[in-house]
Amino acid sequence: MDARISRRLRQARVARLATADANGRPHVVPVCFARDGRSFYTPLDLKPKRVRLEELARVRHIRANSNVSLLVDEYSENWEKLWYVLVRGTARLLSKGKELAKAHRLLRTKYPQYRGRLLPEGAPVIRIRAQRIIGWGRL
Amino acid sequence: MDARISRRLRQARVARLATADANGRPHVVPVCFARDGRSFYTPLDLKPKRVRLEELARVRHIRANSNVSLLVDEYSENWEKLWYVLVRGTARLLSKGKELAKAHRLLRTKYPQYRGRLLPEGAPVIRIRAQRIIGWGRL
Repeated sequence: MDARISRRLRQARVARLATADANGRPHVVPVCFARDGRSFYTPLDLKPKRVRLEELARVRHIRANSNVSLLVDEYSENWEKLWYVLVRGTARLLSKGKELAKAHRLLRTKYPQYRGRLLPEGAPVIRIRAQRIIGWGRL
Repeated sequence: MDARISRRLRQARVARLATADANGRPHVVPVCFARDGRSFYTPLDLKPKRVRLEELARVRHIRANSNVSLLVDEYSENWEKLWYVLVRGTARLLSKGKELAKAHRLLRTKYPQYRGRLLPEGAPVIRIRAQRIIGWGRL
């Protein structure tokens, strides 16, 4: 991977995750994420739960259609400085196992906020395996 | 519309536009936008053109599948402050007419950057008509 893309992905604190339902209707939400090579991990526990896990649109969508896109970018009023990194891949919900434990470690290392009650033991995580990573602009 | 949602949409300088292709594969890019009631306008001229208009993924997708989502949010390390506004609707490419002229006026009013060569006369704009606008978090 391009070192500039790699640096942007390392420094980013937020990404936007696009999913689509079985009928191809897209959805997009802000997410926190951690990365290990071509695997990206985003937990389901950032926001206060108003809905059960199975009802979260992104979870329903991923079950029906595993294709996702993850976008990392930063806005600037100086448009010469704009850039983005787009990750296209397939997503899966991890609800147990070694990879889930690794994802939790990565997330807690990157986000002190996850060291407490926001990411309880065993909390599920979406894993995105990147098929293509595209960089644009002033990376 | 909720006054807090309205204010967030008015103040936002960037949004993320999610589209999906005919096979339901989602795509997401950062976009500038202006709003008039339930219509959102996002021009196709922010970035240096490496590809012809017809080849832009979002344009191809909208032609095949008009469903889109537009996300406005702001990241903060204080997760108590997080919020987002999600606009779900249908998109259409405007390439002439009064509504295109109005979209250009709104975009130039909001973004001084568009007063020059970045938004040439007649440049096409994607119009999103909101079907549902959802607010979450500390709006």
